Amino acid sequence: MQVIIDLCIVPMGVGVSVSKYVAACQQILEEADLKFALHAYGTNIEGEYDQVFAAVRRCHEHIHNLGAPRITTTIKLGSRIDRKQSMADKVASVQRQLDSSNNRG
Amino acid sequence: MQVIIDLCIVPMGVGVSVSKYVAACQQILEEADLKFALHAYGTNIEGEYDQVFAAVRRCHEHIHNLGAPRITTTIKLGSRIDRKQSMADKVASVQRQLDSSNNRG
Amino acid sequence: MQVIIDLCIVPMGVGVSVSKYVAACQQILEEADLKFALHAYGTNIEGEYDQVFAAVRRCHEHIHNLGAPRITTTIKLGSRIDRKQSMADKVASVQRQLDSSNNRG
Amino acid sequence: MQVIIDLCIVPMGVGVSVSKYVAACQQILEEADLKFALHAYGTNIEGEYDQVFAAVRRCHEHIHNLGAPRITTTIKLGSRIDRKQSMADKVASVQRQLDSSNNRG
Repeated sequence: MQVIIDLCIVPMGVGVSVSKYVAACQQILEEADLKFALHAYGTNIEGEYDQVFAAVRRCHEHIHNLGAPRITTTIKLGSRIDRKQSMADKVASVQRQLDSSNNRG
Repeated sequence: MQVIIDLCIVPMGVGVSVSKYVAACQQILEEADLKFALHAYGTNIEGEYDQVFAAVRRCHEHIHNLGAPRITTTIKLGSRIDRKQSMADKVASVQRQLDSSNNRG
Repeated sequence: MQVIIDLCIVPMGVGVSVSKYVAACQQILEEADLKFALHAYGTNIEGEYDQVFAAVRRCHEHIHNLGAPRITTTIKLGSRIDRKQSMADKVASVQRQLDSSNNRG
Repeated sequence: MQVIIDLCIVPMGVGVSVSKYVAACQQILEEADLKFALHAYGTNIEGEYDQVFAAVRRCHEHIHNLGAPRITTTIKLGSRIDRKQSMADKVASVQRQLDSSNNRG
């Protein structure tokens, strides 16, 4: 099952700055050979369900190893069987709507 | 890795009422032998990471099989290595705080 | 606009235990005269949109005042115009589905 | 109170394609004079709390007016009082960590 997720991992008990931990997760996603794109409040990830959630697990384990006693994560998870849709397709689809309504305006 | 998650699965393209699909997921969680508790905007689930996310996968697959072409799900995922904490512990912990502040008040 | 939300507020930079802050928010919701129900990974809240989000704002402000330099919160927000539905209705709706499928089984 | 949110609005009961509704929200955010950036699973928005949540309300109202009987939305909401941080700052902060660990590598 192909999925697109949005992942936002928040280590707790390590102070206020978490960019070090987010960067460590980017490297885990890179090594997992997943497509991903960082944004200001999370990371979009595209791949096969089991592969994606194995990587999320490694992120949690690695952040615990780096010293965070507790982690709270928010995930949005999308799957569809009507057609293939990549992360880029999703953004392009909204952009086409905006373009067409601007042309109509 | 023991986790507590909050799961909210939203089938798309099947109309406005989704309780049938939520009920189907409750049965999948039951069969997976996971501890879970339904609330008004999701389901709390407690268990081992791999077991929990295998069940989430089965929920998506089953809802697609029931006819939903697309699903969007929101998950909160918590893990901690400092101590064991069950779903009941989390609620009790807030309740103790409320009781003690009422006693002080 | 009547809404049901699920609110999960996570103070950062205050250590690993957050029940004190969650308890403080319960009191803010109480004072705001909103219907709410705590669960193991958040709080369901029912009310008018403006009233609900004024209370969420007060929660953030109060937790900052208690010393948390940073807060990250996850909210699910539901609205519907086809019919009225309370938090209790949502749970009952799933329960009816479970009962009827057990009877069929 | 300055906030950064991640907004993902899902209209229900209008079929499987929701890009039309997402595009309509982009225009509401534009008119509200908020900074925002679309990604593959939501939209990052930066602004004053009241202004941001007034815009979210208008998005819900507008999507209901366009015919969606029900909406379920996921929001991440961040505030901090220790220092100012824009959406661009957050991404740059992770990028610096990645660069420095690559240099060390």
